[in-house]
Amino acid sequence: MNINVKEILSDYAEMTEEAMFKYLPKTDCLQGTLVKAMRYSLSAGGKRLRPALVMEFCRVCGKEPETALPVACAIEMTHTFSLIHDDLPCMDDDDLRRGKPSCHKAFGEAEAVLAGDALAILPYEIIAEAGIKNRISGDAALKIIRLLSELSGCKGMTGGQMIDLESENKNVSEAVVLEMYRMKTGALLEFCCKAGCIAAGAGAAQQLAAGSFGQRLGLAFQITDDILDVISDEKTLGKPVGSDAAEGKCTYVKIAGVEKAKQTALSITKQAIEQLSEFNDTDFLRELALSLTDRKF
Amino acid sequence: MNINVKEILSDYAEMTEEAMFKYLPKTDCLQGTLVKAMRYSLSAGGKRLRPALVMEFCRVCGKEPETALPVACAIEMTHTFSLIHDDLPCMDDDDLRRGKPSCHKAFGEAEAVLAGDALAILPYEIIAEAGIKNRISGDAALKIIRLLSELSGCKGMTGGQMIDLESENKNVSEAVVLEMYRMKTGALLEFCCKAGCIAAGAGAAQQLAAGSFGQRLGLAFQITDDILDVISDEKTLGKPVGSDAAEGKCTYVKIAGVEKAKQTALSITKQAIEQLSEFNDTDFLRELALSLTDRKF
Repeated sequence: MNINVKEILSDYAEMTEEAMFKYLPKTDCLQGTLVKAMRYSLSAGGKRLRPALVMEFCRVCGKEPETALPVACAIEMTHTFSLIHDDLPCMDDDDLRRGKPSCHKAFGEAEAVLAGDALAILPYEIIAEAGIKNRISGDAALKIIRLLSELSGCKGMTGGQMIDLESENKNVSEAVVLEMYRMKTGALLEFCCKAGCIAAGAGAAQQLAAGSFGQRLGLAFQITDDILDVISDEKTLGKPVGSDAAEGKCTYVKIAGVEKAKQTALSITKQAIEQLSEFNDTDFLRELALSLTDRKF
Repeated sequence: MNINVKEILSDYAEMTEEAMFKYLPKTDCLQGTLVKAMRYSLSAGGKRLRPALVMEFCRVCGKEPETALPVACAIEMTHTFSLIHDDLPCMDDDDLRRGKPSCHKAFGEAEAVLAGDALAILPYEIIAEAGIKNRISGDAALKIIRLLSELSGCKGMTGGQMIDLESENKNVSEAVVLEMYRMKTGALLEFCCKAGCIAAGAGAAQQLAAGSFGQRLGLAFQITDDILDVISDEKTLGKPVGSDAAEGKCTYVKIAGVEKAKQTALSITKQAIEQLSEFNDTDFLRELALSLTDRKF
């Protein structure tokens, strides 16, 4: 195996960062603070996992990864919007994000609400434009837009965050926690993998397999997040640990314990990897899936 | 003149309300509270001015108003999202909206953030679906999606709200206030009028005239809002009066005074009406424009 997951991730991250900021207006306008706040949160880094999944699935479906670059930029914005609103005082009230002050700490609460709103909206302009300019087909653009709206809205990510809120300080079942994770985290990763296929013009079977891969990756990723919140430290993680328990969050780890959670994450990851048989040249995707369960931050 | 503006508005409102709620998920799901909060704010009524503009411009471009019904529902959701977030404690901190408790008063602050997010996202699924199912052409759907994202995001409505925030308790020029209004209120009305034309397959000249009509209608509408905040009472208006001054808001009335503001609203309305020469059968649009400047609430 001569796959270097970190290196490939970093290449995709570079492509994304080079393209992503060009979609923002200049900051020398009357609403410059808004653009600065959007830029600040988009710059906060992270693994850029979502853009990588979009472009890699486009590649394993036989098209240049660049074809899906606008979609990759779009999903990183959707993800960032959700982080900004998630950190707000009325939500998780997190002062730190990736080791830096969260958006409302740096810019103020109203500014963070608006920056999140703007980053929730901009992705649709980017994808529609890619369709209108024939970078991807118009049909693909419409299907990707519908999918993003479905999987990030009330039936997907945003719905999952509401379940998360309502589960605080309650005893909920394992099934409810897993459904919450499916929506809160799985839905957006499902989007990434499926949208990469759609951008490449792939058929239904590949779209379905990619969606299942992303869905399961999201579950394993979220369970691993919960584990790290219990066993990691603030320096390694770049944010405070133990916050789930402090906030009365209902997590899979709380229900099942760390050891069972580790096993579950691993077995869901294996299920994810099985979906890759629909594609060729999937070493990176397999190693990426394994590394996400095995990560330290 | 046998045009009854109220009656036609009410017919369009009925069409919108009949169609709009069908796009929401059922409330008997794990994220039921989110759907209830979305439904609550969408039900709060109002004139449904924006859907009426979308459908009426589709009609004066020669197509059935129903063709643009999905777009009409979508824009009412975008408008409602902006109201929910605008009312938040960290924004305008308004407890009342159209005489009822605002969303965060009825459901909680985190819930209101999420309900706004979900209503910001859902419109794109609705418009994309209309294009995929050929209710409007795929090309029209992409152009309408791009326009909605542009005019409601950082370059439009959301950008205008940021300017509004930053102008509080400051002396800003008439030009800045008018630019703020253009973005905060004009952009969404520009969208409505233009999108109705695009849905009908109208050409560039009609799109341009419709956009200018909407833009000016928005300016006049916002100036009238400011005037009413000074001269109306809470019972007639359905929300507290004098809140602009109390919040240190920078308004056109504050800069120009009530009398000049009334004149400006009227002269901008006349400019709007001149744009209608690109269309036939525009009695309703003309009377509507005049009635918006002349309204009591």
